[in-house]
Amino acid sequence: MDEEKALLLEKILARINQERIPVGELCSRFGGMNAIDIAALFERLNKEKVPRIFRILPKNIAAEVFAYLEPEEQQVIVEALTENELSDIINQLFIDDAVDALEEMPADVVNRVLQRVPAGKRKLINQILQYPEDSAGSIMTPEYVELRENQTVAEAFNHIRKIGINKETIYTSYVIKRDRLLVGTVSAKDLMLAEPEKRIGDIMDGNVVFAHTTDDQEAAADLFKKYGLLSLPVVDKDQHMVGIITVDDVVEVIEEEATEDFEKMAALTPSDEPYLKTPILKLARNRIVWLMLLMLSATLTGSIIAGFEDALAVLPMLVVFIPMLMDTGGNAGSQTSTLVIRGMAVGEIELRDVPRVLGREICIALICGLGLGLVNYGRIYVMYGKSARLCLAVTLSLVITIIIAKTIGCVLPMVAKRLKVDPAIMAAPLITTVVDGASLAVYFSIAKGIFGL
Amino acid sequence: MDEEKALLLEKILARINQERIPVGELCSRFGGMNAIDIAALFERLNKEKVPRIFRILPKNIAAEVFAYLEPEEQQVIVEALTENELSDIINQLFIDDAVDALEEMPADVVNRVLQRVPAGKRKLINQILQYPEDSAGSIMTPEYVELRENQTVAEAFNHIRKIGINKETIYTSYVIKRDRLLVGTVSAKDLMLAEPEKRIGDIMDGNVVFAHTTDDQEAAADLFKKYGLLSLPVVDKDQHMVGIITVDDVVEVIEEEATEDFEKMAALTPSDEPYLKTPILKLARNRIVWLMLLMLSATLTGSIIAGFEDALAVLPMLVVFIPMLMDTGGNAGSQTSTLVIRGMAVGEIELRDVPRVLGREICIALICGLGLGLVNYGRIYVMYGKSARLCLAVTLSLVITIIIAKTIGCVLPMVAKRLKVDPAIMAAPLITTVVDGASLAVYFSIAKGIFGL
Repeated sequence: MDEEKALLLEKILARINQERIPVGELCSRFGGMNAIDIAALFERLNKEKVPRIFRILPKNIAAEVFAYLEPEEQQVIVEALTENELSDIINQLFIDDAVDALEEMPADVVNRVLQRVPAGKRKLINQILQYPEDSAGSIMTPEYVELRENQTVAEAFNHIRKIGINKETIYTSYVIKRDRLLVGTVSAKDLMLAEPEKRIGDIMDGNVVFAHTTDDQEAAADLFKKYGLLSLPVVDKDQHMVGIITVDDVVEVIEEEATEDFEKMAALTPSDEPYLKTPILKLARNRIVWLMLLMLSATLTGSIIAGFEDALAVLPMLVVFIPMLMDTGGNAGSQTSTLVIRGMAVGEIELRDVPRVLGREICIALICGLGLGLVNYGRIYVMYGKSARLCLAVTLSLVITIIIAKTIGCVLPMVAKRLKVDPAIMAAPLITTVVDGASLAVYFSIAKGIFGL
Repeated sequence: MDEEKALLLEKILARINQERIPVGELCSRFGGMNAIDIAALFERLNKEKVPRIFRILPKNIAAEVFAYLEPEEQQVIVEALTENELSDIINQLFIDDAVDALEEMPADVVNRVLQRVPAGKRKLINQILQYPEDSAGSIMTPEYVELRENQTVAEAFNHIRKIGINKETIYTSYVIKRDRLLVGTVSAKDLMLAEPEKRIGDIMDGNVVFAHTTDDQEAAADLFKKYGLLSLPVVDKDQHMVGIITVDDVVEVIEEEATEDFEKMAALTPSDEPYLKTPILKLARNRIVWLMLLMLSATLTGSIIAGFEDALAVLPMLVVFIPMLMDTGGNAGSQTSTLVIRGMAVGEIELRDVPRVLGREICIALICGLGLGLVNYGRIYVMYGKSARLCLAVTLSLVITIIIAKTIGCVLPMVAKRLKVDPAIMAAPLITTVVDGASLAVYFSIAKGIFGL
């Protein structure tokens, strides 16, 4: 079905871009479409057509489509619309979507747009705009359903019917006491299955899972994962309810956090922007810092080689095995660091597991080292004139390199975690550089010993 | 609050493990706790205590706790319980949870347990057990609410009240025609806000997003992300409704898929098991295959060096820059491949973007290459006796290496995608090996040229 839909979109798109579609037809087509699909269509439209086509949208879905657009398209529309039109849109959005859109607009536009939004909503928007980026507060919405313990189920139903249309979810209601102190939750399922005359206080679940406004959004996402939630209440420092986070935003957070880890682990400065929409200079800047640092560290490895110039002069053949040792050490180390970093990110490995993980990694290093060493010994023996001393020097270095690599790959991320630095930084690139130096020093020392240089 | 809870858990845990807690107290404590927290407690219990404490659990939450346990603890309980007790538990679980638990049990236990489960449920369980691993069918549940177009809202409510307690979600109902043909969806919000006498056919949304049973679970997860869904209907090849996937399972899928990519990108054979619960031999096997392959490929790089032995004999100093060139090439290449692989995984980069991505990467390579080259030139000039020829040879090689690395890092994952191989395999380890060979060949050729060797 998704393919059919994609084909239809392509067709409409081509006709709009070639100006071959009458406004009336477009309008009726949009009426039958999902706001998310319309937004997807806007992203592929020639930029100069965006505002004109946006104005054609039926009023009841224009705001929703706007919420689903990428910041780039929102920007184009913001520039083309009057402030009155913009305020209308912001006013129709759920508050978390309004905040997302406003965060991308220039400060003066935000001020002028907010002037025209009703005072109550404006206050709520301003409040959320103030929470730090990536905090639970910054992704919450204040549009939730509040109930009281002494209401009956029937009263609660009437209340939800009256106000529910403007709430982001009605599937969990939050039971509060005076000062908005959070005391329980009631699911719509419980409400629908309960007798109408029952009291809310009797059917509510008093065992509430919640986040604080200042918690990291990742911690909030962890609660969703652990408890399989559809929404999570957010409270201030005095446990007073201020908003909820909904599961659709959390799905985005989980993906963003994984992307951030991928980037950090590949020696990139993480960026929120999609690749194709990031300016080239910014992409280059995100990469050059780490590349430069790692290049300079690698010169240290170079000086280790320089320190063994005498050995190399006697036995130039030793150079041939440098890439194999460096690569294998890097790979063995980054296997371990990746598993440890990811294990800590998803909560499978904790700091108290350090001794166990280290023990396991050393066992694994021995097994892998012996396996690889054996194959390597055979290969060198056959390819390089059956020199047992050469075989021994290279193979011994290989085994020790793997053990060092797996130990470093396990210890560095855990040390980072202990020091409250993001362990993702201790990934392949950095581990490789550290292991390279160690393995070359081991290699040349062993070779000198075995060949008596 | 989560910290308070953790402290309480630690206290109970210590007392259970020291046999210092009376059964009665434990029973009442469990009564006030969330099934997920109880399951977390079981995972930290001494293994031999697991079955005994499990038997103490109040009947109404035992099945739920069982569903949240890790396969390892489920195994211990399965071995200790009678088949009657096991069938009771399986019978009380939602079908997707029952399937998850059964998949971990030995085949003969599954057969004997299923014998005692009522025929209707047994049939449904058997059906889902047959879908291929990681397919949409394998993670769905048949426990959803079905409505008909000609029902009224009031009738729908009564229907949901009657059967809703046994359904995994009642927040979306699925409207079907004869033969279970899926024609629309109705949210509980729409039901609660609609007039009781309205027809379901009039308030339903006919624009249904669905997956097929054989679709990959990742494709289903993408639909959740795109449309912000709470549940997704799954249909067979004739568009007949067979089940739904709920958002809590999708959150797990998203995390699993990211973990799989992390593992593949670090030259690991992906594994479903958590690190600390995987046998050491299996962990070693998951690593040694790739390590071996990459080690053997790296020997090719070694033979490239061997081919330039004459140049090295004249100018042994050249060796010193090998680690810096290899590391920088590897890092530059894996930065690009990581961004491209992740961009394709989250749908930001498509195959049709190849020329644009390649163009951008070459620009970025030029910028980074010039920046790094400049610093490198200066460093060598100062450190190695102002030899302009040496500076030029190394710096030129560095710039060309970065360009080659970023090109390969961009092209290989896209080629993989085109050939329908998982692009995640074309990550740092493989890219590094390929780039190493290319960069050393360039380096020695340039050096030979410049020094006239």
